[in-house]
Amino acid sequence: MEQVKNKQIILKDYVNGFPKESDMPLITSSTINLKLPEGSNAVLLKNLYLSCDPYMRGRMSESKGSYVDSFTPGSPITGYGVAKVLDSGHSKFKKGDFVWGMTGWEEYSIINAPETLFKIEDTDVPLSYYTGLLGMAGMTAYVGFYEICAPKKGEYVYVSAAAGAVGQLVGQFAKLCGCYVVGSAGTKEKVDLLKNKYGFDEAFNYKEEQDLTAALKRCFPNGIDIYFENVGGKMLEAVLSNMRLNGRIAACGMISQYNLEEGEGVRNLFLVVTKRLRIQGFIIGDHYHMYPKYMETVLPLIKQGKICYIEDVVEGLESAPAALVGLFSGRNVGKQLVVVARE
Amino acid sequence: MEQVKNKQIILKDYVNGFPKESDMPLITSSTINLKLPEGSNAVLLKNLYLSCDPYMRGRMSESKGSYVDSFTPGSPITGYGVAKVLDSGHSKFKKGDFVWGMTGWEEYSIINAPETLFKIEDTDVPLSYYTGLLGMAGMTAYVGFYEICAPKKGEYVYVSAAAGAVGQLVGQFAKLCGCYVVGSAGTKEKVDLLKNKYGFDEAFNYKEEQDLTAALKRCFPNGIDIYFENVGGKMLEAVLSNMRLNGRIAACGMISQYNLEEGEGVRNLFLVVTKRLRIQGFIIGDHYHMYPKYMETVLPLIKQGKICYIEDVVEGLESAPAALVGLFSGRNVGKQLVVVARE
Repeated sequence: MEQVKNKQIILKDYVNGFPKESDMPLITSSTINLKLPEGSNAVLLKNLYLSCDPYMRGRMSESKGSYVDSFTPGSPITGYGVAKVLDSGHSKFKKGDFVWGMTGWEEYSIINAPETLFKIEDTDVPLSYYTGLLGMAGMTAYVGFYEICAPKKGEYVYVSAAAGAVGQLVGQFAKLCGCYVVGSAGTKEKVDLLKNKYGFDEAFNYKEEQDLTAALKRCFPNGIDIYFENVGGKMLEAVLSNMRLNGRIAACGMISQYNLEEGEGVRNLFLVVTKRLRIQGFIIGDHYHMYPKYMETVLPLIKQGKICYIEDVVEGLESAPAALVGLFSGRNVGKQLVVVARE
Repeated sequence: MEQVKNKQIILKDYVNGFPKESDMPLITSSTINLKLPEGSNAVLLKNLYLSCDPYMRGRMSESKGSYVDSFTPGSPITGYGVAKVLDSGHSKFKKGDFVWGMTGWEEYSIINAPETLFKIEDTDVPLSYYTGLLGMAGMTAYVGFYEICAPKKGEYVYVSAAAGAVGQLVGQFAKLCGCYVVGSAGTKEKVDLLKNKYGFDEAFNYKEEQDLTAALKRCFPNGIDIYFENVGGKMLEAVLSNMRLNGRIAACGMISQYNLEEGEGVRNLFLVVTKRLRIQGFIIGDHYHMYPKYMETVLPLIKQGKICYIEDVVEGLESAPAALVGLFSGRNVGKQLVVVARE
């Protein structure tokens, strides 16, 4: 039996406030057997690409009945990733398959509930895309925009955190729908990408705006029909002031709030009544039955060059903590991922 | 032509903060001709019952693109009421008909757009019911609960302002649906009514609770599936903490916020994401096409004694301003209405 070293990123302890790299040390003391025991139903993975996602912040805090379990202090962080099957005790997978789904922040992982993994059928696109565009982030953009927002041609769509993994796709889906789309981001570089690369009709740097309500009013003189909510707090308040009658808000995430001890208060919720707004929260895990339909939609768009997708790639498992921490200061441009191994 | 005095309640000027009786003086200087001019399409009404509703507060402020027009300072207040047709230039109405709909806070009104009035077909129930149970408040409870909340038998339902015009009905509809229903109100008398008269499973006096989140936790150890929102602010925050996964909130009104210069901040909206909540605002004016269906549902319930309905009745047009002001301190018990004339 081949016993090898297995580098891991663990959560040192529950985190308060902004996470730091030092909350997630690399440990090199673990070893792993590269063959599953006889009779196992698990699969053994070699991790290739790991996804850094904002929701992971919630898992660093002690669970208070949240929708996802907390990470276990002292144990490896888990998250979405792309991996190669080295050994399989499960009929759905065989050695050499590529998969995406929940795995560990480590070189090799044993997945005891392999039903949760997706087998990668299309390998003529970059495998790393399955950490985002063809995985959780892509599904989030697709379900959140098409299913939750029910867009109509000509509607006015606003996307916050628009240069991130999900936002960049929502904006492009909205353009494909014939909507007018505005995005916001936190650097000039990202704003330029939104306008010149992703095809947003307009974009602004929220950090340079004194008054978010006025900025949105400038971009949407007729108001907003659809808001894809990634940010929360003061941004949500400014959006509510600019929503049109019967507007829809897909509440996907609220990254501005994740590191606060207490959330910012949103003071103008009465507008939900007067404007007949619908705010719908969603968690993509509830919607994976739509994955085949999504792939049928998105793969041709990718192959026809109709979707532009930017990845922010860092090399090496040891770079993963900084990459994850960087999400919360907006350091990433596009989908943040980590290369653990290329094959 | 018969010229008579027409007492009126006018809005003196736009209101800031809590409205006062003195904001709505009675004037006796107007006169009205009790016959419409030849060729008019209007109807001339003798007002019988006037409805006092919380949404009217918004109309006392200067309009900032709100969903309803502001009242006009110096002119009579308008609102829902029940009236008798004295003269009609419109084919839908004839002298002697009873109607409900938007009318003036005055003895007689000329309605220039009579299409907005509903003709009262069933007169074997008290006519005053058409200011509430069989009018706007009843429709609001019906549409908000059945259409917006999509209740299922056995679900946990919370109603705030539960002893008011709308809340008392929502609670009873929810019981008829087989739900577990808890209501809150602001006096012991109202709490007793909720439990002993309207059949709520549980009720509490929100003014006596140090911690609304804890109070709701006590009443709903398993959490809340459906919240019928009449209050807003801190109550909404406490509810969000207690909502179950996939919960629904019908945002009907937020009476705690109407007299504030700036709304109270709701700090835990991220729970909308993690719990996959849907918050849907609605304005009953968008749903009146369902009125015949509502009447088919509710009239038999009334006649079979399956709906209990309490009215808080004051006598005389001159009592209307105090009755309206009283809504915002919770002085009314049940549907607040004003008798201008009994026929």
